[in-house]
Amino acid sequence: MKDTGDMIIPTFDDVIAAHERIRPHIHKTPVLTSSYLNELTGAELFFKCENFQKAGAFKVRGASNAVFGLPDDMLEKGVATHSSGNHALSLSYAAGRRRIPCHVVMPRTAPQAKKDAVRGYGGIITECEPSTSSREAVFAKVHAETGADFVHPYNDPRVIAGQGTCSRELMEQVEGLDAVVAPIGGGGMISGTCLTLSNIAPGVEIYAAEPVNADDAARSFRAGHIIADDAPDTVADGLKVPLKELTWHFVSRHVTDVLTATEDEIVDAMQLTWKRMKIVIEASCSVPLAVILKNPEVFRGKRVGVIITGGNVDLAKLPWMGMPG
Amino acid sequence: MKDTGDMIIPTFDDVIAAHERIRPHIHKTPVLTSSYLNELTGAELFFKCENFQKAGAFKVRGASNAVFGLPDDMLEKGVATHSSGNHALSLSYAAGRRRIPCHVVMPRTAPQAKKDAVRGYGGIITECEPSTSSREAVFAKVHAETGADFVHPYNDPRVIAGQGTCSRELMEQVEGLDAVVAPIGGGGMISGTCLTLSNIAPGVEIYAAEPVNADDAARSFRAGHIIADDAPDTVADGLKVPLKELTWHFVSRHVTDVLTATEDEIVDAMQLTWKRMKIVIEASCSVPLAVILKNPEVFRGKRVGVIITGGNVDLAKLPWMGMPG
Repeated sequence: MKDTGDMIIPTFDDVIAAHERIRPHIHKTPVLTSSYLNELTGAELFFKCENFQKAGAFKVRGASNAVFGLPDDMLEKGVATHSSGNHALSLSYAAGRRRIPCHVVMPRTAPQAKKDAVRGYGGIITECEPSTSSREAVFAKVHAETGADFVHPYNDPRVIAGQGTCSRELMEQVEGLDAVVAPIGGGGMISGTCLTLSNIAPGVEIYAAEPVNADDAARSFRAGHIIADDAPDTVADGLKVPLKELTWHFVSRHVTDVLTATEDEIVDAMQLTWKRMKIVIEASCSVPLAVILKNPEVFRGKRVGVIITGGNVDLAKLPWMGMPG
Repeated sequence: MKDTGDMIIPTFDDVIAAHERIRPHIHKTPVLTSSYLNELTGAELFFKCENFQKAGAFKVRGASNAVFGLPDDMLEKGVATHSSGNHALSLSYAAGRRRIPCHVVMPRTAPQAKKDAVRGYGGIITECEPSTSSREAVFAKVHAETGADFVHPYNDPRVIAGQGTCSRELMEQVEGLDAVVAPIGGGGMISGTCLTLSNIAPGVEIYAAEPVNADDAARSFRAGHIIADDAPDTVADGLKVPLKELTWHFVSRHVTDVLTATEDEIVDAMQLTWKRMKIVIEASCSVPLAVILKNPEVFRGKRVGVIITGGNVDLAKLPWMGMPG
């Protein structure tokens, strides 16, 4: 960790330490390919399947790093967070494995499957309204009452160091990548990717993929400073949250470009992945494929890592239900 | 092949030859595990993911073996078949790769996704009613008109030898299996499994899993002779077809037991697999997990191979749509 006075920035040594710490608690997820999608895009795509990860999402990497690095005098009070879903259940999973309490503030509109899973791992849920402002207000109350250690879903150096283990694995699994594409919400996965790649593969391009309907990262990237939305609406429910200073630090320095896709493009890419690759992925992690399909000139002829961030989907409420298949 | 006068029975040498012949045209599919499902069942389950197979199903193994073994003087007339879906698109896929015609008789009620995929590979579809009798009548007409080589979906020694390559791979990928469970419709996969395991691992138990609503194999197994249904109705649309003499040969000699599951049990197992393993699988290949959950005393403590036969699902028409998730 590097303390700049303003913030504590994780270094690549923290990624290596995180990897050792979390290894017993996570999967080394497989990388899948699809000859159909390669033909369709003209690129060679390597899908890093974090939908097969413990708790169903990459977020278990950062959450486990925070939980298993927690000092002994904090174990009784445990951890707390607010999250649109996957960080909540990842933190609950990790806390459950360390047998410490985990308090979670979740929007009441979060998918039922995610709420059930959080409770299944032993997490204690307090609901808020689906806006950044409500979430932060409710969380402040829970935090004050419990005294638990706040593990922010992405603006936390322990979390970013944990997420950085994903692209470290990907680089071991696939040789000669030209680019990596990952979805961007708050920027935790992208920041971890920046941290790792800027250290071990600085020539690899990093693209952040974002819904047009929640394009605060794209607008921040163009403007050169953080622009936040309150309560954006998108099918990619994991990507509604804004950048914060720590993720902005990485995004502003290392991201090649932020590309956006519409709701229809995201749902089409999601359906295409289910149909052709036979894997269950969230709308949020269909955004990378959507932007690759939309910007063929950027990716054609390249070897591209695509981070499939999670697979926690409400099967009774799929975005194409009622639409022609 | 062994000619008994009554029928031509494939031998394990045919499985080895099939494996060499089809290797360039198929995937060696991965084996996935789930600690959640292991805990739930008390067994160690190894899922052989033929849903990731070319054309989305194991049937491409048998179909490719038939197509790539076709003599030169038959190439112009091509191949023909009738199928509830996956054999149709597998044969179309293989024929497309060898650039020969492929005529397919399909029930008009087959999932739209399967019809689209057959046509996408260049197959020529003639529709029939969803009953065994209609299918056979329409097929006889198509066969007579085209003179194409009939590749039966399962009652064909070339097809059974091809399907036998799946459990050959599984035995290379997982050590010390005690049992293998696969769905049974016409019996092609189970027969290939019997052929391979009886030669290379005769101690491994073989369980066939079947819907209660199409339990002709279970009743045949108890009776000691083939009992066929006409037009059974089950969500497991790949398992509606009856055993024939060649598959009965293997089933009657090598299967340990035929276990059945109800429609609800099948849909529950399908949903559980999607939710927990994040893979898209058909109702047909959820029957093995359904019977494992239903008969814990049979499988507890064992290392069990589970053949996930395919992932070709109509995403707009999932069996739990309209049901609570």
